[in-house]
Amino acid sequence: MSKILRINTTDKTYTFEETPADLAGLGGRALTSRMVLNEVPATCHALGKFNKLVIAPGLLSGSPAANSGRLSAGAKSPLTGGIKESNSGGLVSQKLAKLGISAVVLEGKPEDKKFSMVIIKNDGVEIVPADEYVGIGTYNTMEKLWDRFGKRTGVMCIGQAGEQRLQAASIHVADPKGTPGRALGRGGLGAVMGSKGVKAIIVDDKGAPRLTLADPEAFKVANKRWVEMLTSHPVCGEGLPALGTAVLVNVINEAGAMPTKNFRTGRFEHAQDISGEKMAENIEARGGVISEGCHPGCVMKCSQAYYDKEGKYLTSGFEYETLWAFGSHCLIKDLDDIAMMDRLCDDFGIDTIDTGVAIGMAMEAGLIEWGDSKAAIELVKEVGKGTPMGKILGNGTAFTADALGVDRIPVVKRQAFPAYDPRSVKGVGVTYATTPMGADHTAGYGVTANILAVGGTVDPLKKEGNIALSQNLQIATAAIDAAGLCLFVAFAVLDNEDGVQTIVNLLNAQYGMSLTPDDVVSLGKSILNDEKEFNRRAGFTKADDQLPEMFKESFPPHNTTWDFSTDELQETLNF
Amino acid sequence: MSKILRINTTDKTYTFEETPADLAGLGGRALTSRMVLNEVPATCHALGKFNKLVIAPGLLSGSPAANSGRLSAGAKSPLTGGIKESNSGGLVSQKLAKLGISAVVLEGKPEDKKFSMVIIKNDGVEIVPADEYVGIGTYNTMEKLWDRFGKRTGVMCIGQAGEQRLQAASIHVADPKGTPGRALGRGGLGAVMGSKGVKAIIVDDKGAPRLTLADPEAFKVANKRWVEMLTSHPVCGEGLPALGTAVLVNVINEAGAMPTKNFRTGRFEHAQDISGEKMAENIEARGGVISEGCHPGCVMKCSQAYYDKEGKYLTSGFEYETLWAFGSHCLIKDLDDIAMMDRLCDDFGIDTIDTGVAIGMAMEAGLIEWGDSKAAIELVKEVGKGTPMGKILGNGTAFTADALGVDRIPVVKRQAFPAYDPRSVKGVGVTYATTPMGADHTAGYGVTANILAVGGTVDPLKKEGNIALSQNLQIATAAIDAAGLCLFVAFAVLDNEDGVQTIVNLLNAQYGMSLTPDDVVSLGKSILNDEKEFNRRAGFTKADDQLPEMFKESFPPHNTTWDFSTDELQETLNF
Repeated sequence: MSKILRINTTDKTYTFEETPADLAGLGGRALTSRMVLNEVPATCHALGKFNKLVIAPGLLSGSPAANSGRLSAGAKSPLTGGIKESNSGGLVSQKLAKLGISAVVLEGKPEDKKFSMVIIKNDGVEIVPADEYVGIGTYNTMEKLWDRFGKRTGVMCIGQAGEQRLQAASIHVADPKGTPGRALGRGGLGAVMGSKGVKAIIVDDKGAPRLTLADPEAFKVANKRWVEMLTSHPVCGEGLPALGTAVLVNVINEAGAMPTKNFRTGRFEHAQDISGEKMAENIEARGGVISEGCHPGCVMKCSQAYYDKEGKYLTSGFEYETLWAFGSHCLIKDLDDIAMMDRLCDDFGIDTIDTGVAIGMAMEAGLIEWGDSKAAIELVKEVGKGTPMGKILGNGTAFTADALGVDRIPVVKRQAFPAYDPRSVKGVGVTYATTPMGADHTAGYGVTANILAVGGTVDPLKKEGNIALSQNLQIATAAIDAAGLCLFVAFAVLDNEDGVQTIVNLLNAQYGMSLTPDDVVSLGKSILNDEKEFNRRAGFTKADDQLPEMFKESFPPHNTTWDFSTDELQETLNF
Repeated sequence: MSKILRINTTDKTYTFEETPADLAGLGGRALTSRMVLNEVPATCHALGKFNKLVIAPGLLSGSPAANSGRLSAGAKSPLTGGIKESNSGGLVSQKLAKLGISAVVLEGKPEDKKFSMVIIKNDGVEIVPADEYVGIGTYNTMEKLWDRFGKRTGVMCIGQAGEQRLQAASIHVADPKGTPGRALGRGGLGAVMGSKGVKAIIVDDKGAPRLTLADPEAFKVANKRWVEMLTSHPVCGEGLPALGTAVLVNVINEAGAMPTKNFRTGRFEHAQDISGEKMAENIEARGGVISEGCHPGCVMKCSQAYYDKEGKYLTSGFEYETLWAFGSHCLIKDLDDIAMMDRLCDDFGIDTIDTGVAIGMAMEAGLIEWGDSKAAIELVKEVGKGTPMGKILGNGTAFTADALGVDRIPVVKRQAFPAYDPRSVKGVGVTYATTPMGADHTAGYGVTANILAVGGTVDPLKKEGNIALSQNLQIATAAIDAAGLCLFVAFAVLDNEDGVQTIVNLLNAQYGMSLTPDDVVSLGKSILNDEKEFNRRAGFTKADDQLPEMFKESFPPHNTTWDFSTDELQETLNF
């Protein structure tokens, strides 16, 4: 029977409770969103004592299922003011699952400004002072924690941004190398962890029994098919292992959908310089690693180790969205400088998307020049120093624009747009507008049918079909996030008729249930309904489900505009 | 027939149009709120090209009616995201009215970042470059403009804060001395003016005909009674002329309602040091002016000229709320240092309430020490310098708290609380929560019946009667703001049975109408309904009509808490 671990951060105590019946069968995002809805007053201050940070492994986490090691965290977001779920790879999810923990909940708030860390082992929990790690970046923190607790432990921690409770602060999870390239990136969950005075959580599953499978044989059969499905798909089995998500630079640029100079055009003349191909070339020449997984059991291995010109490790998990945010969005073409900013963001513990888009706001305001990567690096460094400028940037795109008097701000619900222009990939645009998360490509990745011809095709430039596309993807994504599966499995699931059934087979074999694909759809819908209900209570209305006025401008090269009405968009999550 | 003057700030052109029939009979706040509702898309960016700044004299402005020289400005607020009306004394309102202008509307947005000024004369309008005034404070700007255009002109301008488009930026209106002690203070209207690239508006009524009164004799009779009513009231005729609004320091402190150290207690041990009595003592000793009016025709003369220790002019319009914000809220007891911050805020063009409360946030965060007035002065100076710290503070209380990771934030709709604790003056608390303006004492000043025994008595510590009190006051205030009357007339109006009738008599005599007191109530309700409708379209819900969670704490000395439910509060403006 699984347990919920509650950490009272006010008085540094903890309790275990049996996962109650009404939460049984929920994992990952399904569990975090339900618990946040049930337990957090929607109008509370996100950094106050009434918010809670709920950390939950996915339903399949800890099992041998391929790519099932995703960890969800949820809370009221200090960035959006609404509900938030972010998820990440790394080692923590599988270890929590093996310890039989369905959720760790950080509650309350310390009276002082000191930091603690939470150590979770098979034989108990400790909450101890973390003074010696305060003010230290995630790289150094993880290294010190592995030195102290051993390299078999799972570690998640915040950097200087989370300590400062900045609205774009992320939580980082150590990958198998012990580096913080994996982030619960969006929506400021690092600030929530910081507000609870928790610098790090260490999870040691030594001595924990192996996870019991209800039907090991059926599980084995299902997982065999699962691995085969993933490895034989052109995106999951070829594109991602070869170039990571950076494979998208040339693809999205070619599609005229890579926002350039703060969403003024859809093609960047220097796209080649920041492409996945260029990244791979540098890695090969400098001795890095082209393809590695972020958690055991990953068969796609889309991560990498990027080395600098001196052949020294610089960064991991260097994604397309980061390349775009610091790259074409800012007219920056120096890949090494972008890699440095990715490294700095990981180290300070801050979202690369909101930070990169914020740098573009500083350029928009004339604070630094468009394309000046050295000046951009200096700005990012301010976050770690805790200067007033660092606090502005660290609070994200909307905050930076407000500070600098900029009115051309690509955000929904105050969260920055990712790397796909909504006028050239309208399915993603519908997701940006309507997901309860704020602008977020991962909540319903319409790029699939819009551009990659995965799961069918829907014209990316027209309205027709894109609301349905976003709806279906948002439902499916919510379910995948609940299962603890990497979102990238979706490419294979969409292109295989037995995709959803195979996930259902895995769940049934693990838990001894008899779910059907319809149950998975129902789960996805119920997650979205929980999230919508929280946001409704927090005061969100359809006025919040819109794109900013700048997207009424015509967008080259296709010269399309954003033309969905507010009421049309409301149909997206109306079920 | 009155005209609307529209200034196109994109191409620097203007048009006059006859005030259309459906806007006739509206003035001041009634006109600004109606025009903003009709013409501004509620979800637009407040600093973008779709917002409009509507500037309108009150209905009685320009007439000989006592205390009728208030000027309203309205727009979508960059601070609250909702509709905003602020009003001020000074010379502009009466001059616009004499020129037959019912509203000046700043529309569009310049493509460049240059500033212009608008010169309105009897024989035409000019829009000319204002380069030589850019970066200059309001004191110096007004002095230069009077040197250039003469001391008979009305001037309104922004300071460095408005130029930076900071969310707490105010618009300042020259008083009869040509100093900027009068401010359209709240909600960031200075930022809207800055976003339109307008540094100043100069109004010269030379050559304009005298305002025509429909029934001069009836007007004279009504105004005689009006002056008598005002001058014979203990607050309007004695308290305000003697000590200005600073008379309230000892009164509100005695009532246990003066929020101290960021709303932790209701009494400040050093209240006497920052009191009206102390202010008057300093002024007398140093050769300042104890009592002067902010516009011709004022009979209350609650303004003053406060001199420094060297006997040099320092500031005017030094209000109770400013004394409180920089004083007891921050545990500062040095009156001269508070006066210096008032001066700096006026000069930079920024709201003293949001700035003072923001200084308290910096103390809450540990950035500077509680009570350290010298450090506070240095922080305020950053606003004028345009540093990152200045931009943080200049965006107001909520923004500063967010930048510094503070979760104890006294705001509603992101606008800072003024100087009355809602737990000890519950009638004001209801207004804070429910007015469409964000926390604002002037929108429904429950201190009247709660503490001053004006217009009856309602227990300030209990719920009973306070929703009705706030409702009645909000309706009456909206009507007074439409008339262009100083809000302080309300004390006399509430305590005289013929109060409202006298205002009605003035309006009827000026316009040849046959209004009744019921029509005035209807006008007040229709203004509030316009404002509620704009906010509804902008996405506001009952979740926005609440006080922050910190007010659940028990508040000494009366140990009361904020105990209204969300649904109870919704009754306030339900008519």
